[in-house]
Amino acid sequence: MPNSSVSPQRLASAIRALAMDAVQKAKSGHPGMPLGMADIAVALWTRHLRHNPADPKWLGRDRFILSNGHGSMLQYALLHLTGYDLSMDDIRAFRQLGSRTPGHPEYGVTPGVETSTGPLGQGIANGVGMALAEKILGAEFNRPGFPVISNRTYVFLGDGCMMEGISHEACSLAGVWRLGRLIALYDDNGISIDGNVSGWFRDDTKKRFEAYGWKVIGPIDGHDIDAVDRALSEAESQEERPTLIICRTTIGKGAPKLEGTNKVHGSPMGGEEIAATRRAIGWEYGPFEIPEDVYRAFDARPAGARLEAAYDEMFARYEKAYPELAAELRRRIAGDLPADYAEVVRAAVSGAQQAAETVATRKASQKALSAICPHVPEMLGGSADLTGSNLTNWAGVESFSADHLSGRHISYGVREFAMSAIMNGIALYGGLIPFGATFLTFSDYAKNAIRMAALMKIRSIFVYTHDSIGVGEDGPTHQPVEQTASLRLIPGLDVWRPCDTVEAAVAWGCAIAKKDGPSALIFSRQGARFMHEQGDCAESIRRGGYVLRDAEGARAVIVATGTEVQLAADIQAKLAEEGIPVRLVSMPCTERFDAQDEVWRRSVLPEGLPVLTIEAGVTAGWARYLGGRGSSIGIDRFGASAPASALWPLFGFTVENGVARVKDLLR
Amino acid sequence: MPNSSVSPQRLASAIRALAMDAVQKAKSGHPGMPLGMADIAVALWTRHLRHNPADPKWLGRDRFILSNGHGSMLQYALLHLTGYDLSMDDIRAFRQLGSRTPGHPEYGVTPGVETSTGPLGQGIANGVGMALAEKILGAEFNRPGFPVISNRTYVFLGDGCMMEGISHEACSLAGVWRLGRLIALYDDNGISIDGNVSGWFRDDTKKRFEAYGWKVIGPIDGHDIDAVDRALSEAESQEERPTLIICRTTIGKGAPKLEGTNKVHGSPMGGEEIAATRRAIGWEYGPFEIPEDVYRAFDARPAGARLEAAYDEMFARYEKAYPELAAELRRRIAGDLPADYAEVVRAAVSGAQQAAETVATRKASQKALSAICPHVPEMLGGSADLTGSNLTNWAGVESFSADHLSGRHISYGVREFAMSAIMNGIALYGGLIPFGATFLTFSDYAKNAIRMAALMKIRSIFVYTHDSIGVGEDGPTHQPVEQTASLRLIPGLDVWRPCDTVEAAVAWGCAIAKKDGPSALIFSRQGARFMHEQGDCAESIRRGGYVLRDAEGARAVIVATGTEVQLAADIQAKLAEEGIPVRLVSMPCTERFDAQDEVWRRSVLPEGLPVLTIEAGVTAGWARYLGGRGSSIGIDRFGASAPASALWPLFGFTVENGVARVKDLLR
Repeated sequence: MPNSSVSPQRLASAIRALAMDAVQKAKSGHPGMPLGMADIAVALWTRHLRHNPADPKWLGRDRFILSNGHGSMLQYALLHLTGYDLSMDDIRAFRQLGSRTPGHPEYGVTPGVETSTGPLGQGIANGVGMALAEKILGAEFNRPGFPVISNRTYVFLGDGCMMEGISHEACSLAGVWRLGRLIALYDDNGISIDGNVSGWFRDDTKKRFEAYGWKVIGPIDGHDIDAVDRALSEAESQEERPTLIICRTTIGKGAPKLEGTNKVHGSPMGGEEIAATRRAIGWEYGPFEIPEDVYRAFDARPAGARLEAAYDEMFARYEKAYPELAAELRRRIAGDLPADYAEVVRAAVSGAQQAAETVATRKASQKALSAICPHVPEMLGGSADLTGSNLTNWAGVESFSADHLSGRHISYGVREFAMSAIMNGIALYGGLIPFGATFLTFSDYAKNAIRMAALMKIRSIFVYTHDSIGVGEDGPTHQPVEQTASLRLIPGLDVWRPCDTVEAAVAWGCAIAKKDGPSALIFSRQGARFMHEQGDCAESIRRGGYVLRDAEGARAVIVATGTEVQLAADIQAKLAEEGIPVRLVSMPCTERFDAQDEVWRRSVLPEGLPVLTIEAGVTAGWARYLGGRGSSIGIDRFGASAPASALWPLFGFTVENGVARVKDLLR
Repeated sequence: MPNSSVSPQRLASAIRALAMDAVQKAKSGHPGMPLGMADIAVALWTRHLRHNPADPKWLGRDRFILSNGHGSMLQYALLHLTGYDLSMDDIRAFRQLGSRTPGHPEYGVTPGVETSTGPLGQGIANGVGMALAEKILGAEFNRPGFPVISNRTYVFLGDGCMMEGISHEACSLAGVWRLGRLIALYDDNGISIDGNVSGWFRDDTKKRFEAYGWKVIGPIDGHDIDAVDRALSEAESQEERPTLIICRTTIGKGAPKLEGTNKVHGSPMGGEEIAATRRAIGWEYGPFEIPEDVYRAFDARPAGARLEAAYDEMFARYEKAYPELAAELRRRIAGDLPADYAEVVRAAVSGAQQAAETVATRKASQKALSAICPHVPEMLGGSADLTGSNLTNWAGVESFSADHLSGRHISYGVREFAMSAIMNGIALYGGLIPFGATFLTFSDYAKNAIRMAALMKIRSIFVYTHDSIGVGEDGPTHQPVEQTASLRLIPGLDVWRPCDTVEAAVAWGCAIAKKDGPSALIFSRQGARFMHEQGDCAESIRRGGYVLRDAEGARAVIVATGTEVQLAADIQAKLAEEGIPVRLVSMPCTERFDAQDEVWRRSVLPEGLPVLTIEAGVTAGWARYLGGRGSSIGIDRFGASAPASALWPLFGFTVENGVARVKDLLR
């Protein structure tokens, strides 16, 4: 692939120049990493990476992830130089409003960017997810002579990623799963923002990764392009184990005064140092100027077109030999659901409707999964070592392992953060819909990965059981109080807290169908009375908030979620006995409700009627539904260890309190 | 210390029996771990641990942490049997409302419990913090012949802790810091909740910890009490490196049918299996029955009294030789601030008042620290590899390292979660007030440790800079929008977002003085105009929300925080020009404001006046301040990569928009 007439060092210099210039023009950014990893990048991108810049979504492409995302200019330079639809004007607009070259790589903004990175450690975990997806889908779809799913995942990462705990969680799993097509290149430059890392980071990284079951190559000289090339070939020569290539580098390589220091990490180098660097690396061109021979040498489009053409030819034969498999793969990669999906969900809902069971909503969730998943083969469940508690394992599902790739339920171990970021990687790869669970309290451990799913608008489904003080004896460390409200603050995340089997089925139906963003599904350990005797209200449930039981001449509205809906119904009934009609609103998903038009919202919460909200969590988020007159029953302090039956009254979740609070509002 | 007439196996049986019985009676809990670690516990608690059950707060005691906190009955059994103020009635009340034996160990509830555990991986990180505090304080206060600060920290941990990423972060640091008095005992039983761990956890843990620079002993037989004893002696024989003792154990050891399976992890064993276990381990006593010889053999009070008496005698001589040092140590351990603290804060505030500087509030924070810290020697700052951005390093502070223990600023590396949990350990040890920083967005990474600080009511101070879209070019991954609101949901956490140098100084003053809980201090990268020309309002600021600039006949109130206060002032001025008087309220800490009496709150936000809130974050939390008539300028979506000057108008933070919004309210 490389144009032999141009030295690889010259190609690396082009990357360095672009990175320096773009950061300087933007007056902000991170030149140190691109200068330090330019040689590694040349080795990978001109000699190993299989991709087609003309078709960034080509299914057969290798995946490339910049886990140390602050070095974004490295990736933009590579995308531009190899021929992606990213012009020099885009490079000049680095970090400017509306540009396709934002400060950190953003999925969906820049062609060729496979995931958004910047929050350290998550890129490598995304990579583990992509490599896992490749392995699983390969096992499902490949046939002898037809490697329709077959690519490597390459990850660049730095000291910061190595220090983050998520790198431990994710790389430990990569070892267990024997992700032999995952290759990570570690920018071992010994410098982080605070300076020489020896004061806070002295891991023997080789030994650490060998402990995870990885193949470790190096340390090698990360500025010796041929050495990196050889290491990559060695890594690619086996597929039993993931590989870490430790590349000793100098941060800011080539900058006479700044290289090897933390000063070059995160700010423009200044005109003088840039000029000196140009001289030092022998780059005689002006800012943003790339000579033709360099463009030609980098251009990956001709080779990419050949690769893709060969793939297409193979796929055409595959399609002939296995038409159904090929159609299924196309559907799955497109992210479309099975043709009968709506019917499947309808059946799940009406099954729940007919069974009319009183069960914990985590059990309701499992029933919904058991009804839906057999018809949606892309569903890939999992749990962070709480399978029997989260009940994410549906009827008939088999456990995934490296020796049983057709299993569709993953035991992720006690690794909430990695589980979530790996799910994001799986969702980004496509072809599978990942969901994974832990206790709601421990959503805290994974918080930033949930946010990243929302930011990237991808279909990761986060399942959280043990939703409240209803957990009981395990006590306040295990009883969420602020988590539901906190999840609702993440833009673009649908947070569902269903009240029974029917709402659970609808919630699952909506989460799976939501192609453009993540959902969080919150379920209870405690029992939940069946609340839908009056018949089908799936359409109303989908709107996030609806009148569950109305009352003629209602004088107030009670709004509740999850297992508190049954309490609200009891309060409503008691008030009715006393001649006070109130309306009962179930609000399983505030985001959906807020997205309805005002007509719907006003039809549910009429102007002027006082509102009492009931939810076993902090009350702050409910204020906006109270209008001027309203109040909330909730929990604005931590829980306690005791049987749940003792806790509910302690925290005011009683019919008596509810009745009194409504009467207060009517006073 | 052990009573030689009673076999150690018999002591272990007593622990097993109590654990089984208590879980059975509570009808919930985790018997598997106590049965599995009983032998290890006997070795540690009867032959090594230096403590005095009669005085659980004795300064010279070793610290013991149950990082696998679900095995709480192990700790309660040990506390009861060795003579702590924890009666058999307390044991019988395991997991009941108001008991001193909650489901997971809770700091402040049970004498002898050094930290709350349950959220896995955090206990070992707390232990790293305690061992670090011991090392730092020892270097400060010990004198030849007077080891007044001298203890070991012992941590029990299991597979779950080992899988969690925070164990990587914390143990890596323990190696760098050479915490030779930290000894961790790993319950290597090969079982986690989902079953045999080999499907999701295959680390070579010995190799992994050697990579961190730890001494690793074993694997040894964790049921061989003498072997554990010898391993502990070996660990204690050197203080150069932290030690991990890998103990191979059988979960639920002694239960004929259940041992070695995940079924014994988290639920009562049942009467039949308990009876069979009693027979198998040769324990002929009834439920909750402990024979006298066992009590006598366990009783650590006589030895503890001798240890403490010897310590007291030594301390008395120390006090004579170094009266000032002794007094300082007493003050520090009591958690009291220097006598002139109020004066120091007053000076910091009035210095800020006089300087009247317009600087980023992160810079304002640094100025406050520089004014306060030289007078408060217990301040121990730090940053997760963002020192130059967080500006937590005050004038004159030196960097901490294993070779420079008097340094008072720690570079924690890129390890937000471990930093926070280590801070909690430091705060729990006492004698130091830890604060540590990262970017506000990455508070997500540490979320559960912040919660644990609030739950434990300890003085950890979390500093978050780069508070909003004001971050600019780094883009949405680095721009918090939901984090400030999310932190406010944590019960007991004071969240400060000061608007200028004066508020920053007051916020620091309050956070340091808050002995009974954590604070989060949120500062800006962007500039913040000096807002307090009118003079001292420190007393008002302490109330969390106050009238910053009033207007005669105000028709509306603008409430703002942080750098948006200056915008609010401009809006106020513009409206005044147009003849519309509005009041400007600064609300740096909503928790403090909410805690004021209604008189104050109404004096700030008068009933009937419409309210416009302005904060560069999600608006949901502000609804409760709006009354019936109000609106919010905020950001209910993710940010964007661009210079901040381009982002503020894009998101509606302009005088024009503010003026229009107020006029809308007055319509």
